[in-house]
Order: sequence, then C-alpha cells, then structure tokens
Amino acid sequence: MNSIAPYFPIWNQLTARQQEQLSGAAIRRSLPKGTILHGGVDQCTGLLLIESGQLRAYALSDQGRQITLYRLFDRDICLMSASCMVRSLQFDVTIQAEKDTQVIQIPSETYKTVMEASAPLANYTNEIMASRFTDVMWLMEQVMWKSLDRRLAEFLLEESALENTQKLRITHETIGEHLGSAGEVITKMLRYFQSEGMVKLSRGLVELTDPDKLEELRDRS
Amino acid sequence: MNSIAPYFPIWNQLTARQQEQLSGAAIRRSLPKGTILHGGVDQCTGLLLIESGQLRAYALSDQGRQITLYRLFDRDICLMSASCMVRSLQFDVTIQAEKDTQVIQIPSETYKTVMEASAPLANYTNEIMASRFTDVMWLMEQVMWKSLDRRLAEFLLEESALENTQKLRITHETIGEHLGSAGEVITKMLRYFQSEGMVKLSRGLVELTDPDKLEELRDRS
Repeated sequence: MNSIAPYFPIWNQLTARQQEQLSGAAIRRSLPKGTILHGGVDQCTGLLLIESGQLRAYALSDQGRQITLYRLFDRDICLMSASCMVRSLQFDVTIQAEKDTQVIQIPSETYKTVMEASAPLANYTNEIMASRFTDVMWLMEQVMWKSLDRRLAEFLLEESALENTQKLRITHETIGEHLGSAGEVITKMLRYFQSEGMVKLSRGLVELTDPDKLEELRDRS
Repeated sequence: MNSIAPYFPIWNQLTARQQEQLSGAAIRRSLPKGTILHGGVDQCTGLLLIESGQLRAYALSDQGRQITLYRLFDRDICLMSASCMVRSLQFDVTIQAEKDTQVIQIPSETYKTVMEASAPLANYTNEIMASRFTDVMWLMEQVMWKSLDRRLAEFLLEESALENTQKLRITHETIGEHLGSAGEVITKMLRYFQSEGMVKLSRGLVELTDPDKLEELRDRS
C-alpha cells in the first residue's frame, strides 16, 4: 500500500526494506460513526492514518465522566491507538469515531520495529507525540484558567464550524462529555446564553442565534 | 565528562563519536534555590541532567497564576528546558529550582544533532517526553475529576514526605501556586482542615496534626 507515504514527510529517509515493512503491514479499515476504538494502555490497535472522517480522543473518569482531549481529521495520524509502543505512555485515552471514518492501520509491532531502527521515523514520531502533548497542555490551561462560559462558547463555535451549520443537533449531556462537565451544569449555562440572546434551545437542538456575541465572550480576556 | 553516561540507558548504543559529542559539550551548573530557568518556547537552555536538588515545572496564566505540572529529582532529565529541539512542542513551561540544584547541561543544538542521527537516542527521548506527558495527563485528570480538598490533602502529604517534616514552612499563596488556586481559596480550605483537626495553622507554617485523616481524605473515592 503506497498510500501511506504522504503521511510521513520522512518517507524518503526510510530504507526500501523499511518502506516495505510499513506498507506491507498496513490495512484499510472503515470505522462507522460511534465506533469506540481504544480503551486503555493494555489495548493496542495500532497507528491509524486518517483518510477521511473524524476521531475524538477523550479521557474517562471512574465515575464515567468524559472530557475531549483533542480531535483528529483527514491526514492526521492517531498515535494514542498505538500507545503500547512507548513504554512510558502510561495513561488511558479512548478514541471514538465521531463521523464515518476511513483509516489505514499499521500494527503497533511493525511500526515499533521500524521506529527502533530508524532515527528519522523515531524523530517524526516524537513530533507527533509533541503535537498531542501540546493539545493537552492547551486544554489543561483552558480548564485551569478559563471559565466554563468561555469554554462553552468556544465549543459551540467550533462545532458550528465543523458541522457547517448554526443548528447543532447535540444534547446537553454530550456537550458535557466534551467539556468535562455534568449535563445539568451545561443546561444552566445554555439557559443563561439563551437569556442573553446568544442561542435558542429546543429539544435536542442548540441554535446559535448570535455568533458574534459568542465570539466576543470567547475572546474576552 | 563521563558522568553523563548513567543518565542514558542506551549509552552503549551510541557511537564513540556521538558519546564524545554529548560529553564534550556538557557543562556543570549550580542553580541556587529560587533560580528561574526557562520561561517559554523561545528560550532553550538545554537538556538538564539533575545530579542533586529539585526542580519544579509549572504553567503560568496571563494573570500570573501558577500550577505545578511535575517535579524532577536526582537522576531525572529535564527535557522541557530544551523544548526548542522538538518543533511541535508549542507550549510554555517555566522551570524553577526548589532547592539548591546541581545539573549537567547539554546544549540543545548538540543534543538535537545526535538525536537526529541516532535511533536509540531519539527513542529514549521519546520515552522521556512520554513520561512528562503522562505526568501532565495525571494532573489533568486530578484537576478535572478530583475536588480541591483531596488535591490539597495530597499536596500536604507529598510536601511533608519530601521535606521530611510535619511542620511545613509554606505560605497559602505558594500552595495556591502549586495547585492552580488563589491564596484565599487555600486559606479557606486549610481553615476547614484545621476545624477537622487535620492541620494546625500559624504564621507561615502549616503543621500536619493528623496525617492519617489527611490520607483518608486523599484516598476517598
């Protein structure tokens, strides 16, 4: 499968044998919307190269609460589904297909073998991990320093851009799972947004009625 | 300087030339207690190998609030002081010497050069980064799912173990900087702890009077 080359800017620095190892082991998979892929340090699906669709990585509390850590889109590489490759990565991340998603999967063992022999691939993998680390640090700072109203405004605007609509079909519970809050807390905040004219709420629907005002709230320092 | 070999389990997988490059560029530095080492993506002090002492890595908000991300001790390697080596590491971490600290410093440029050529060193660097990533994910989950009273109990117990005393000379402001909270919030919580008989407060001092009860609080699910 030659289609994996574009995912690796360092492809030409791999030997022909290494290129064959990776290509030969790669398989295409379809992940229907809603598929849960990976749930812990013990499971190790493999590296996922996203051809199309959308994945969400989230953390899960003992009590079942969730928070979205980051999202991955076309051309992204999902490393956490192969976290067993890196011994010191000792935390659980769950991956969920948020849309129907097409991926190319490289088994962890194969990837690890090549990475151990190839400095370019090891350094590139380092860059991928650093990107996710940066995403999580960003989130950490949001959670620490930013109030929920601003994070909620940001989430609604991002979701609206991703879905290309002002009318979001999403439950308060699901929004809570992205932001790490309980559904009731989100309901309360959304009602406040509604009273301020920023959104209009109806069953299973959040309509953005004043995106400019939401942006203002998001960017407030 | 041969003293850097013990920091790298993969030392024998480096070529003689690579070993010389790293050793030749390494210098010893003393960091008196309180030294601030690194404050942002633009600065790049270099890799720090800790011979003795204690470093604290923390994030800083625009408003000047702090939260401790992790601490480093003897035999640890501080990678974030060389974060410029990894292009995708795009966040600011400040490093502070919490005690008088002796380090061996390897310039980022030298380390990067060797890492780019050596798969073992690149993979080992990956492991170091993964450890810090794991620390930050742990903290993230604490902040998200754990209430401040449990985090404060945990901090007091850890600090008491590190300093080997029940009487902590520390201000509420400083505790707040570790936990990402305002000093007044900590004062309020400590007064509650005092009313429960877990600590005794006096000027600049927090005395742990019932560590068992603090442990119980920390471990409460």
